[in-house]
Amino acid sequence: MGIAFDHTTLGQRVVFGTGQGVENTVAQLAELGSERVMLIAGVSAAETADAIAARIPVAVRIGEVVQHVPVENANRATDAALAHGVDAILAVGGGSSTGLAKAVALRTALPIVALPTTFAGSEATSVWGLTENERKTTGTDPRVLPKVVVYDAGLLTTLPSRLAKASGLNAIAHAIDGFWAPRADPINRAMGTEGLGALVGGLRALPSGEIDAVEQTLYGAYLAAVAFASAGSGMHHKICHVLGGRFGLNHAELHAVVLGYVTAFNAPAAPDAARRVSQAFDGVPAGEALFRFRAEIGAPTSLAELGLAERDLPEAAALALEAIPPSNPRPVTQAELEKLLRLAWAGEPVSKGQL
Amino acid sequence: MGIAFDHTTLGQRVVFGTGQGVENTVAQLAELGSERVMLIAGVSAAETADAIAARIPVAVRIGEVVQHVPVENANRATDAALAHGVDAILAVGGGSSTGLAKAVALRTALPIVALPTTFAGSEATSVWGLTENERKTTGTDPRVLPKVVVYDAGLLTTLPSRLAKASGLNAIAHAIDGFWAPRADPINRAMGTEGLGALVGGLRALPSGEIDAVEQTLYGAYLAAVAFASAGSGMHHKICHVLGGRFGLNHAELHAVVLGYVTAFNAPAAPDAARRVSQAFDGVPAGEALFRFRAEIGAPTSLAELGLAERDLPEAAALALEAIPPSNPRPVTQAELEKLLRLAWAGEPVSKGQL
Repeated sequence: MGIAFDHTTLGQRVVFGTGQGVENTVAQLAELGSERVMLIAGVSAAETADAIAARIPVAVRIGEVVQHVPVENANRATDAALAHGVDAILAVGGGSSTGLAKAVALRTALPIVALPTTFAGSEATSVWGLTENERKTTGTDPRVLPKVVVYDAGLLTTLPSRLAKASGLNAIAHAIDGFWAPRADPINRAMGTEGLGALVGGLRALPSGEIDAVEQTLYGAYLAAVAFASAGSGMHHKICHVLGGRFGLNHAELHAVVLGYVTAFNAPAAPDAARRVSQAFDGVPAGEALFRFRAEIGAPTSLAELGLAERDLPEAAALALEAIPPSNPRPVTQAELEKLLRLAWAGEPVSKGQL
Repeated sequence: MGIAFDHTTLGQRVVFGTGQGVENTVAQLAELGSERVMLIAGVSAAETADAIAARIPVAVRIGEVVQHVPVENANRATDAALAHGVDAILAVGGGSSTGLAKAVALRTALPIVALPTTFAGSEATSVWGLTENERKTTGTDPRVLPKVVVYDAGLLTTLPSRLAKASGLNAIAHAIDGFWAPRADPINRAMGTEGLGALVGGLRALPSGEIDAVEQTLYGAYLAAVAFASAGSGMHHKICHVLGGRFGLNHAELHAVVLGYVTAFNAPAAPDAARRVSQAFDGVPAGEALFRFRAEIGAPTSLAELGLAERDLPEAAALALEAIPPSNPRPVTQAELEKLLRLAWAGEPVSKGQL
C-alpha cells in the first residue's frame, strides 16, 4: 500500500496555559502590535472579556453573539470594524463568537485572536459560516483562521456538565470521522489519534472536577478539530448534518447517538481506523467501544429520545445517502442506511456483523 | 502534571506521490500562478530538473549548488532573481538546493516550491543558514519556509545506501532529540512519534529496495523535521553541532554515533520520551534500542572511526557543555559529558545505569 496524499497544514500559534488566559491574550495582542481591538464576547464570556478589556486598547466591543452567525450581525460587526479603524479581532467564547470574528475577517482580513470557552474547535479551522433567511452558507478561507489561539482550561470549569459532555463527544466525532473522511491522510490521522487519546481520558475524568481532565479534553478537542479541518466531513458528519438540518435535532447530541453506529458500520472496511479507535479505548473493538463509552459517560443513546419520529426514518436515510462521500471505506445502500438509522432510533447497541 | 505550551504550527502544503514528482511540481507552480520561475538544481538533480524545466516557464536556472550556502552564491542568486523578475523559486535536490532557495526568499519573500531528493528535512523548516568567511550564521524567518513541498519517493531510490542511511539516522535524531528539546510540547511530540515509527520501519526495510520502504522513510523524515523545527535543538544536536564545527566530523555520521549515548543518558530522567522511543523499537528499552538499531542497519559506531582524536575529548566536552540547553531533562556535568563522549569515542554500547 503506497503513501499518497495532498495535505495542507494551516499556520497558527497556540498558547496553552491554565489560569493564564487573560495574561496570554493580552501578551499575544501586544505581540501583534494591535492598538485598536474589536472585542467580541457574549454574555457567558463577559467576565473574562472585562478582565481583558481593562488591559488592552478596545476600539469597539460587541456583546450580541448569535448562533450560526446571521448575516445582518456579520454586516453590522464588519461596518463597526471599518468605522473604528480596528486592527485586530479578539473573540472570547464558544463557536458563535469565533464565528462572528471569522465573518468579519472574511471581509477585512483582520487577524483574529481566539480565547475559546468550549470544546467546539472552530478556532482551529478556516471554515466560516453565515446564515441568511434561515439558510446557512459555509466555506473555507485562510483569512478566517485565527492567527493565535489562547487556551485556558480554567475558563471551562464552569461549563455545564451536559454541554461539556456533548461538546466533548462532538470532538470525539471530529477525530473518528476524520479517519475515513475524503481528505484523510497519514498526517491528519496522526493528529486525530493523539487528539482522540486525550479526549477519551479527559472526558472519562471530567466528572472528577479535576483541572487535568479539562486540560486533556481541551487539548484533545483542539487536535481533533485540526485533524477534522484537514480531513473533511465523513459519513458520520454528513448524517448528522442532514438529521440536524432537516429535522431540527440538537447537533451535539446527534453525535453522541450516531457515532457508534457509523463506527460499527465502517470498522470492518477500515481496519486502520478501527485499530486507532480500539487503541484509544483500551483495546475494546471499535464499534463496541463507543456504545460502552456513551453509557459510561451518560450520553443520550437514541434518535427517538432526541425527538425524531419513526416515520421519518426512510426520508432521513434517503437524504443522508446522497450526502455520504463516495470515498467512504464501505459502500452504503439505502436499505443499509435505513437499518443503521432504525437501530440508532431505537438506541440499541449493535454487535459485530449486525450492520 | 499540567499541560502548558506555546506551539507555532507553520503553514505548508505537502503533496506526496511516488512517480508523480514532476507532474505535481508542474501543477503546484501553475496553481501559484507562477510565470517566471527560478529553478535551482545541482548536478545530482539535473535530470529531474530538466524534465520539469521542459514544462514550466523558467526565467533563470542555477546549477551551482554548494553546501552551507556561501553568502556570495546567495547574493548572486538573489541578484539574478531580481534581474529576471522571478515570481517563484523551485528547488530540486537536497538541503543545499533548498538552502540556496531559502537565502533568496529571505531577501525577496518569493514563494518556494521544494522537490527534495534526500531525507534531510530542510524543506519542512523556516531555518535558513548562510556562510561567510567560514562562519555559518543561521536564523529563522517565516518567509523562507517553502509554501509547497512535493515528495516523490521514486527520486530517492538512487540515493547511495551510505547516504540514505546517514540521512535517515539524522531524521531519527530529529525525532528523538525533539522529545526533550527546549520547545518540546505535546503537539510536536505527537508528530515526532509518528515520524519516528515510520522511520524505524522504513530504514529497516530500505535494503530490500522496495519503494514502500523509501516512502515510509521519506514520510517519517518529513514529520521528524516538522517536529524538530517546532521543538528546537536538544542535547544531542548541540553535541553534534560542536563536534562537527570544531573538529570537522561528518555531521550525518555523528548522529549515528552520538544518538544512542544521549538517549541512554537522558532516558532515566525523561520517562515519556523513553517510552515513545521504546515503543517505536518494539519495546526494547530506549538506550539499548538505538545501539541495536545502529548495528542492525550497519551504521558507524565510534567517534574514533569518524576521526576524532582521544586527546580532544576534554575540549569537546567543555565546548559541548556550554551549548546544552538548561532545559535538558537531566542536568549534565563536565565529568559526565566527558564520560559519555569517551564511551562514544570507543563505540561501546552502554548498559543501564552506566551513564
